Amino acid sequence: MLNFTFFNPTKAVFGKGQLQELDNLVPEKATVLITYGGGSAKRNGVLDRVKDVVAKSGRTVLEFGGIEANPEFSTLMKAVAIVREKKVDFLLAVGGGSVMDGTKFIASASCADNFVGKEAELLTFGFGAVPVERSIPLGTVVTLPATGSEMNCFAVISNGEDKLPFMHPSLFPVFSILDPELTFTLPENQVANGIVDAFVHVLEQYLTYPQAAPLQDRMAESILQTLIEIGPETLAKPQDYDARASLVWCATLALQGLIGVGVVPDWSTHMIGHELTALFRSAHARSLAVVLPGTMRVRKEQKKEKLLQYGERVWGIVEGSDDERIEAAIVKTEEFFNSLGVGTRLKDLGVTETDLDKIMANLEKHGMTALSERGDQTLDVSRRILEAVL
Amino acid sequence: MLNFTFFNPTKAVFGKGQLQELDNLVPEKATVLITYGGGSAKRNGVLDRVKDVVAKSGRTVLEFGGIEANPEFSTLMKAVAIVREKKVDFLLAVGGGSVMDGTKFIASASCADNFVGKEAELLTFGFGAVPVERSIPLGTVVTLPATGSEMNCFAVISNGEDKLPFMHPSLFPVFSILDPELTFTLPENQVANGIVDAFVHVLEQYLTYPQAAPLQDRMAESILQTLIEIGPETLAKPQDYDARASLVWCATLALQGLIGVGVVPDWSTHMIGHELTALFRSAHARSLAVVLPGTMRVRKEQKKEKLLQYGERVWGIVEGSDDERIEAAIVKTEEFFNSLGVGTRLKDLGVTETDLDKIMANLEKHGMTALSERGDQTLDVSRRILEAVL
Repeated sequence: MLNFTFFNPTKAVFGKGQLQELDNLVPEKATVLITYGGGSAKRNGVLDRVKDVVAKSGRTVLEFGGIEANPEFSTLMKAVAIVREKKVDFLLAVGGGSVMDGTKFIASASCADNFVGKEAELLTFGFGAVPVERSIPLGTVVTLPATGSEMNCFAVISNGEDKLPFMHPSLFPVFSILDPELTFTLPENQVANGIVDAFVHVLEQYLTYPQAAPLQDRMAESILQTLIEIGPETLAKPQDYDARASLVWCATLALQGLIGVGVVPDWSTHMIGHELTALFRSAHARSLAVVLPGTMRVRKEQKKEKLLQYGERVWGIVEGSDDERIEAAIVKTEEFFNSLGVGTRLKDLGVTETDLDKIMANLEKHGMTALSERGDQTLDVSRRILEAVL
Repeated sequence: MLNFTFFNPTKAVFGKGQLQELDNLVPEKATVLITYGGGSAKRNGVLDRVKDVVAKSGRTVLEFGGIEANPEFSTLMKAVAIVREKKVDFLLAVGGGSVMDGTKFIASASCADNFVGKEAELLTFGFGAVPVERSIPLGTVVTLPATGSEMNCFAVISNGEDKLPFMHPSLFPVFSILDPELTFTLPENQVANGIVDAFVHVLEQYLTYPQAAPLQDRMAESILQTLIEIGPETLAKPQDYDARASLVWCATLALQGLIGVGVVPDWSTHMIGHELTALFRSAHARSLAVVLPGTMRVRKEQKKEKLLQYGERVWGIVEGSDDERIEAAIVKTEEFFNSLGVGTRLKDLGVTETDLDKIMANLEKHGMTALSERGDQTLDVSRRILEAVL
């Protein structure tokens, strides 16, 4: 097991009716900017309910809507201008991963005094942490279980054809409200995407090589098994509270940090997936569902022990040669995604062989030339991964 | 799944050589009181290493040794006097659960301005949280993996024949150093006790009734399975880093909060065990190892579904009638404890049938008359539990 530091100060406030807790959680007398997305929170009444509670206790409430899926730098900078002008001292994101990630960027960029006028450069620091001293404190009200952004300090922001990750320790939400009932009205495809997103987050921390971390392995398998168990159920019965509650909590814990401590992850599926989203506007989870099976097949030698363990413990595959068991585990994964209505081939995204050069050029531009747990996934290997899922 | 709030701001700094991080973790120029136990930290050199690092960066270092197993109120009050007199502003516990729990009491009692001269009353608030505004901030250096105190806000303190739990949200350690190598020199029986303590902590949060929390169930099972896997290994090879590292992390996560969110626990084994320790000076874990099998047998109807699930998932028991499978799961648990050299009968603690009246009187005195997940464990039921393990 590798050395690690685990720190996660976000308060998760989980369950029915927890929206009322906002009055206790948001600082009194604060100037609060509520951020949201394309309008579903407005249409289904969640935004009004949030505003009603936050408006208590002497707070000034401002709002900023229109944060798009794969939030755009140019959009977010409009919110940064509001924060600076109105001296906002608390941000409240109401939405899914895009709104939460976008709000994290607003929180950092608003305080990046050395970067005024060149805030886009904050996105180039990636996982090296943006050079800010602090961020505007933020909370979230989660309406889409998927990205886990509600309980980590990471975000991914788009700037034209660049889709870039960044992080800063000051970006852990102070609190996140996780009320499963707020997700009952989501369209089926967004719920399916959330299941896939969480599943892939777990596999990217798990599917590397054995690292003498049996507890982390089993906790990762716990999330995978639970998603397999409750995923189809919550799609079929969106108003079943318990199944949806498990999905919400699985999505949060998939990227809250605990399953990844002491082990080396392989985020290559996300890195390639980001290029598909940036270039072809594929939904984030849909791009992951395509790249992951390719990664599993092309990298099966490097990931052999963990693929066998995954097959046995998660899918009960114990018959056949190593190769047969690994292939069976990959097929099970594909069938699971397909059963949720999520495709596992590039053609499902409308991407063809002629697009590969463009994807490769973007990967190179973003420095993604030595991916994977061993740093040995060259551009050539990434190309073979995509060719395996044409 | 029940509503819950999960919040755990402790920074876990895990791995080889992490003691050096103390200089970054303890506030500069602070007056620091280092607390420790019976002297093993002094003898094996850990205390000196800690002092060397903490003495940097303009800090004033004081020390307070002699905190006993099952820390005594009267001992701890001597440290409270030092904290008040020397205006200590950071506490650093170097030890196991007793030192950490004792230090938490020092941290709270030192700030309980309304209770000066009657600090013992703080122990009567139990899990209702002691009425303090704040506590002296504290960190820990863990030398014994067992209680999980390093990453929660609970503590248990003895005052003569009373052994009482208390808690306060301000008592989460700011940080905890978890270096598995610091535990290599522990006596075998203390390592065995730690394995049992962690195992029972998990079962008390898990072995109740199904509560539509499949992820919490599986995460609990993950810790149990890992303890079964690495427990005997780390006893046999105390210097095997990876096995010991897994034990340390299992013990922490067993009582860090996550496996208990959204479900109702049953802490009756601990509550009865505390009386055995208070009256007969039984080591904490040894008392739990006796009470738990009695609880499993006497309460097998109330805990039927979870006992069957535990047997199947943790021990692979799938053959036989429900009753046979439950009995097999209990026997497996007893055999596991016995294999670690830990007894599972009252006679192993030197306690006999004639002592039962005294135990019952203490349980009644401490209000433990409606224990368990359903509150239906009367004194009569607790007596039957103890009679089942004479």
